[in-house]
Amino acid sequence: MDVAKVAIIGFGTVGAGVARILLERGDRLARHAGKRLQLVRVVDADLKRPRTLLLPPGMLTSDVASVINDPEITVAIELIGGTEPARSIVLKLLESGKDVVTANKALLAEHGPELFAAARRAGRSIAFEAAVGGGIPIIAAITQCLAANQIQSVHGILNSTSNFILSQMEESDCEYSAALAEAQQRGYAEANPTLDVHGTDAAQKLAILAHLAFGARINWRDIPRTGIDLVDVADIHYAKELGYSIKLLAVAELVPEGLELHVSPTLVRHGTPLAEVRGAYNAIRVVGDAVGRLFFHGLGAGQMPTASAVIADLIDTVVGRWAITFRILNLWSTDGEPPIHLRSRAEAPGRFYLRLNVDDRPGVMSEISGILSRHGISMASVILHETEDDSSTVVPLMIMTHTVPEGDMAEAMKSVNQLAGVYPGTVRMRVRD
Amino acid sequence: MDVAKVAIIGFGTVGAGVARILLERGDRLARHAGKRLQLVRVVDADLKRPRTLLLPPGMLTSDVASVINDPEITVAIELIGGTEPARSIVLKLLESGKDVVTANKALLAEHGPELFAAARRAGRSIAFEAAVGGGIPIIAAITQCLAANQIQSVHGILNSTSNFILSQMEESDCEYSAALAEAQQRGYAEANPTLDVHGTDAAQKLAILAHLAFGARINWRDIPRTGIDLVDVADIHYAKELGYSIKLLAVAELVPEGLELHVSPTLVRHGTPLAEVRGAYNAIRVVGDAVGRLFFHGLGAGQMPTASAVIADLIDTVVGRWAITFRILNLWSTDGEPPIHLRSRAEAPGRFYLRLNVDDRPGVMSEISGILSRHGISMASVILHETEDDSSTVVPLMIMTHTVPEGDMAEAMKSVNQLAGVYPGTVRMRVRD
Repeated sequence: MDVAKVAIIGFGTVGAGVARILLERGDRLARHAGKRLQLVRVVDADLKRPRTLLLPPGMLTSDVASVINDPEITVAIELIGGTEPARSIVLKLLESGKDVVTANKALLAEHGPELFAAARRAGRSIAFEAAVGGGIPIIAAITQCLAANQIQSVHGILNSTSNFILSQMEESDCEYSAALAEAQQRGYAEANPTLDVHGTDAAQKLAILAHLAFGARINWRDIPRTGIDLVDVADIHYAKELGYSIKLLAVAELVPEGLELHVSPTLVRHGTPLAEVRGAYNAIRVVGDAVGRLFFHGLGAGQMPTASAVIADLIDTVVGRWAITFRILNLWSTDGEPPIHLRSRAEAPGRFYLRLNVDDRPGVMSEISGILSRHGISMASVILHETEDDSSTVVPLMIMTHTVPEGDMAEAMKSVNQLAGVYPGTVRMRVRD
Repeated sequence: MDVAKVAIIGFGTVGAGVARILLERGDRLARHAGKRLQLVRVVDADLKRPRTLLLPPGMLTSDVASVINDPEITVAIELIGGTEPARSIVLKLLESGKDVVTANKALLAEHGPELFAAARRAGRSIAFEAAVGGGIPIIAAITQCLAANQIQSVHGILNSTSNFILSQMEESDCEYSAALAEAQQRGYAEANPTLDVHGTDAAQKLAILAHLAFGARINWRDIPRTGIDLVDVADIHYAKELGYSIKLLAVAELVPEGLELHVSPTLVRHGTPLAEVRGAYNAIRVVGDAVGRLFFHGLGAGQMPTASAVIADLIDTVVGRWAITFRILNLWSTDGEPPIHLRSRAEAPGRFYLRLNVDDRPGVMSEISGILSRHGISMASVILHETEDDSSTVVPLMIMTHTVPEGDMAEAMKSVNQLAGVYPGTVRMRVRD
């Protein structure tokens, strides 16, 4: 049986998972690859870290050149994460004739065009199933299985950390800070959770999906995004009362004016599949003109789910399937179709949830509803609770609107927030039925 | 740009959908295939049927030899359905050097070993994504995307007709016969619905999935199966009262003793993704040792969802990806791994729902619970309602058990059904949490 020699660059959590499968599941992999996948080298900058997986003697090294300069290694798996030194190393791996498998969405979102062009120049490929959706085979689905379709929309819960925190707030009735601490303790959130909770990670993944689904060449920084760090447990309560859960939703939707893209905490109606996605799970809902609505649900992060996607890519690469897809799709190329027009956020219509802190006196409600009405905004639901604290003169007022252009909504809110009876701290979130 | 010439054999609903995409979406397909897919011939036995799609003059023929003998046609799409003449035609297509794409699960479940051996002899491939799960890319997922995993279980709602009927009974509170009539009127059920509602279709699809996921070479007739035709709307009511929906569930699960396979109406707990699958939708839940739980949900039948899967296969075949997969996986080959032991139905443990028609007198309940107890079966819930009809002396008694081997359950029910106070018509269904 033929042998394909493989190296892993970056021996963190996912690296150890991939190494474990390669070392312990050789027979199963050989059945799917038609050849033995032999792990010959694992590179990590830090040789001293304690490891849960014991590698064969001599396999672990800090010298990445020992992979780049070894012509027998045909595929390298980049699991360093981040943009540098990952970018430079991937470029060198490609130049030295190796195919690359990566789980690094930040790298692709930042340097996709450069890296994919380098791969084409070198006659090699870059596979990246693990970069979006963890163990969910969404890259294969969009690039191959849905080829008959004009994709019309992609709605995703793409960041496991945010979803874990929001689920925790809903289920344990705790504040954001407590849920974040729990996520950090369980290893679902980094010590510095900024990239996850501010929507950066989800926007980078959405940029990749939007490129595959719509051919959109966009900088992830141009995707309007709001994180979950400002979501209050009170909003989770009120959303529940209205029949919704709050999810960090990444949306790419083809509309007559172009492509609408955004990442934001969104009220998702109970009973719809996206509302039932809990904990570290991810989900992606794709609508295609032939297939209709497809829904994928699985673990979006974690050692073994991510390793599962990396190994699938490795096999696809080793057997030659991915080279075919990679060549035909001409990903992130600058020739080909004209760029898709991104619809500005102000044009995007939608329903909105508002929470206002208002004076507990007659007339305020009438002033607010008057302003909304003058902007053509009609209300679908209103919640105004009696305050439990008799001495308080400020009460929360929740309004859910019917569909309205976001521009009109923003204009109306400017006026509402200037009312004497409306206090700072107004919350506005999108609603999805 | 290169051209691949393609023929469709069988111009029914799905055939017309595939032809429509090929004729109207040429540019999109060319972007994914790297060449033009040119539909050159459509074969159907009946040239007189009214068609919703107008083909170019001269394309439609009743002469299948005009495809078999045309060396320029490299791929043929078999959409005749059933086993003959589909089997003979596919064999001839393969012998004449054409790759085959099919949506025909009955053909594969009956003649898979023969057809796949013939394809290998001819150096050709058979692609069959559309044979299971309609537009859901489950074949690609199991054969390629989950290659890193030992799959542990597959749970599927695989028959759209049955799911539509059960959903209809639940939502419209109607009897089986009325729901079937509605399904027939909407085109979801054949005039003769036997293959769908008796579980044959689901068992054939399960046999295919079990082969791909577990290497099991099984005759679909050996899969224990119960259809939905005996499900009473009363059971749907009582299930709802207990917090469950009834679904026709196809199960393949690896257990220490071997592989457990069955198709049966099953109570699925509300709030789990499978319980939320409604109408003509299908869903498949796959558990793998690395990826964990993955869930796929989409339209399992219908013209365009099925055509979407057929076109994906066609592109996979034309670009050469499927040839690689097909060669390596060596599907339905008789060499290779030893056959997997099928666990007999009697060994399979589970929870059960029972509905008994019992005498409305003291003592019956005690006799029944005594028998269950002597067989080691404990009850999780019991429902005994007052009858609305005062003159009736027979009342329904519903029992949901804790986990018990099916053999013990069957033994106990033999004794229960012999009690003087228990009338014929006892219903027993599996429960899944």
